[in-house]
Amino acid sequence: MEFSIRAAVLEDCKDIARMTKELSEYEKVTDQVTITQKDLEQDGFSKNPFFHGIIAEVPEQHRTKEGHVKIGYALYFYSYSSWKGRAIYMEDLYVMPEFRGIGKALMSKVAQLGMAAGCTQLNFTVLDWNKSSMDFYLSQGCFDVTGDMGYHCMRCDGEALERLAQP
Amino acid sequence: MEFSIRAAVLEDCKDIARMTKELSEYEKVTDQVTITQKDLEQDGFSKNPFFHGIIAEVPEQHRTKEGHVKIGYALYFYSYSSWKGRAIYMEDLYVMPEFRGIGKALMSKVAQLGMAAGCTQLNFTVLDWNKSSMDFYLSQGCFDVTGDMGYHCMRCDGEALERLAQP
Repeated sequence: MEFSIRAAVLEDCKDIARMTKELSEYEKVTDQVTITQKDLEQDGFSKNPFFHGIIAEVPEQHRTKEGHVKIGYALYFYSYSSWKGRAIYMEDLYVMPEFRGIGKALMSKVAQLGMAAGCTQLNFTVLDWNKSSMDFYLSQGCFDVTGDMGYHCMRCDGEALERLAQP
Repeated sequence: MEFSIRAAVLEDCKDIARMTKELSEYEKVTDQVTITQKDLEQDGFSKNPFFHGIIAEVPEQHRTKEGHVKIGYALYFYSYSSWKGRAIYMEDLYVMPEFRGIGKALMSKVAQLGMAAGCTQLNFTVLDWNKSSMDFYLSQGCFDVTGDMGYHCMRCDGEALERLAQP
């Protein structure tokens, strides 16, 4: 399949917002999505961006029936392990269903970007019921840090975060 | 107990490296720590740092029997949720055993820094056997994203990362 992968630019935010919504539908959490195109523009494409992105694009002749040529994306940011050092975190990896084979190339690109920046780890999360994604990641040599080492993801948000921030 | 919390500077890396080692002993993974003082200096205190840090310090008269006044730290970096937007990630939270009550103040400071930057989430991980830490975090209103929502932390490193990065 013909496609290209390139760095995301401001003008991609509309399509990233669309695909983020599609991903949340797949992951059955649409009620949790509060991010908008404008948020993505501000947070990813100002000075000191909170994330970076890459876009997978197909030629016009392969556009979807809805007219889309931007058919996949990954968001990532640089992170750190105080034991292992520089790391890259893949926040999202999404490819529209009819183009699924492209996921590998997007993930490979994130790995390349990480290695070029001196990162020794690529980290991400997967939902435990999402067996096809888990199987894909395991087939790529990734391992389940939660299952193998017992790490749990923890979060503080909303009123609890406000309370915690009280001096 | 008298103590102060301030932003970490280059000169703190020796103590951060010492305490990172202490933390890894507590978490029983000393064999996994490859990071050095020099790595911390380069990765946290150059242009485009991979992390930021805060240090808890006690006055000279309360120094430890080994002579330490820097007795706790937290490392953090900014991250992103494509559903919720700006987030802050707490990579490490450590306080030397005889000063344990200070952990809350360090975590509170990370929450403050996150909120000041417009973050709506504070994320981190905890080991499932570390019941005292888990209980502390839950008492602060944090929740277990892995237990409640099924998210697993995944990783690719070493030769698998090199293979994945092959175009």
